[in-house]
Amino acid sequence: MITALAGGVGAARLLAGVVQVVPPSEVTAVVNTGDDTVLHGLHISPDLDTVLYTLANVVDPETGWGRAGETWRVMDGLRRLGGVTWFNLGDQDLATHCYRTQRLAEGASLSEVTAELVRAFEVGVRLLPVTEDTLRTRVQLAGGPEVGFQEYFVRLRHEVATDGIRFEGADSARPAPGVLPGLEDADTIVVCPSNPVVSIGPLLAVAGISDVLRRRRDRTVGVSPIVAGRALKGPAGRLLVEGGFESSVVGVARFYREWLGTLVIDEADRTLAPAVEDQGVRCVVAPTIMSDAEHAAALARVVLDAAG
Amino acid sequence: MITALAGGVGAARLLAGVVQVVPPSEVTAVVNTGDDTVLHGLHISPDLDTVLYTLANVVDPETGWGRAGETWRVMDGLRRLGGVTWFNLGDQDLATHCYRTQRLAEGASLSEVTAELVRAFEVGVRLLPVTEDTLRTRVQLAGGPEVGFQEYFVRLRHEVATDGIRFEGADSARPAPGVLPGLEDADTIVVCPSNPVVSIGPLLAVAGISDVLRRRRDRTVGVSPIVAGRALKGPAGRLLVEGGFESSVVGVARFYREWLGTLVIDEADRTLAPAVEDQGVRCVVAPTIMSDAEHAAALARVVLDAAG
Repeated sequence: MITALAGGVGAARLLAGVVQVVPPSEVTAVVNTGDDTVLHGLHISPDLDTVLYTLANVVDPETGWGRAGETWRVMDGLRRLGGVTWFNLGDQDLATHCYRTQRLAEGASLSEVTAELVRAFEVGVRLLPVTEDTLRTRVQLAGGPEVGFQEYFVRLRHEVATDGIRFEGADSARPAPGVLPGLEDADTIVVCPSNPVVSIGPLLAVAGISDVLRRRRDRTVGVSPIVAGRALKGPAGRLLVEGGFESSVVGVARFYREWLGTLVIDEADRTLAPAVEDQGVRCVVAPTIMSDAEHAAALARVVLDAAG
Repeated sequence: MITALAGGVGAARLLAGVVQVVPPSEVTAVVNTGDDTVLHGLHISPDLDTVLYTLANVVDPETGWGRAGETWRVMDGLRRLGGVTWFNLGDQDLATHCYRTQRLAEGASLSEVTAELVRAFEVGVRLLPVTEDTLRTRVQLAGGPEVGFQEYFVRLRHEVATDGIRFEGADSARPAPGVLPGLEDADTIVVCPSNPVVSIGPLLAVAGISDVLRRRRDRTVGVSPIVAGRALKGPAGRLLVEGGFESSVVGVARFYREWLGTLVIDEADRTLAPAVEDQGVRCVVAPTIMSDAEHAAALARVVLDAAG
């Protein structure tokens, strides 16, 4: 049994590789909900949806998020009305948000709705939101206001300096059903190549998760989202530096070292392997760029082999 | 200055006639919000939207509601997910609901949002929700549960017997800004050919409105939504009967007589004119079927002439 800690695009791609190597029914993904937001009254869970669409093979292959063959009728209409359009929502994607929001309003939990979507999209992997409680990543802009994560990530295109990250609701957020058992019982805990600060960080902030990870440190294998000193996508490098870590595989190792047994780094960072091991984290060097399904499967094999 | 009491399709058509006869800037419509509902987290105001789309000339001419040339991408997606699809929402229409919901969440009032939509759709008429407070028409099904109006109207297609209508929130709902002055200052108060029970009824339930209407009875002119004993559309006939009134122009006159000075009835009901006048309501006979823009304008002229 494999349990993965997952953010969005990078996690989704690795999980798509994992299910080529092991039966999907043996895979659980604990997914970040710190990015969740309510816009137009709709409950949007970007990371859950990215993983869902990717595993269902309906994701936009260009962007890595949203739906392939998407249309934008509602957004076009909203633009004509002068509405909020910086967060682009395709018509097919909106159907998911409408479904989720209505089911939540009917009293279903986010876990239940996610399980329903997993069935509807015929995804074999078990997807768990990290928590059913409200957890919201808030970004303190340097010399500016605190904003919601999507405002930082999408509207401001993460091109601004930050002065702190906070996970609102983390103090009282409980792990969703299945999360702690999934981590306790896993043969391997995979830390996907997601943003350490704002994708994996919210998971670590939920009560009990760090404790399990620490106890199971020898079963945890991560993939560095930083390659050759930079994130393949998004602000991981910048946020690591702003948080006092290096934008390198060494910074990732240092960020995770208390509970990460093994870190897989890209061949481009081969010379940094000793520095990673100096952090007390075992280091495996392999190609980590998931340019297609074959490379994703190969990386998944490396990760699972690294777990022994 | 003309102020109209308005429900959905019939009201929208008469208002489209009125603006051919007088400048739109001289027209205020006080619109029913008892039909409003929240679905998929979206705040939907069916009557406001029907009037808006009709006056903007973007309404679906076949149905009289929704958008012309509409697409259904989101609904199709929602259907594939097994979501709630009995309330059909087109993609262009959804843009309106997204806009409204987001603005309400940002703290705008329903009046403000409506004014913004009126500007965006370049409608010259002033549209006022009857109230900014929550007002919800609830339908007690005969021998069954109480349901929301849209569940009765759309999901059950108003094909079931009712045992009472209630306007939830009416006790505390205050007229929206401009509503009472609009009625006080109007040269003519037009009661559109809407469902007396569930379209005009909620307006009458909001504090202060009936009082103004009673005082201004000689300035109020209504158009009967019942022609030859039947509603042209919807359950007005059935609901009148179930409420103890006749499904006829006489029933309409009796329903409105405390505050309605004049009722325009269709030529098909000419023989009932004396019975209408027996209710103490002046009766004008004219063609009332608004089969096209010319007929709507002609009816508007009759209504405004009837006011003297």
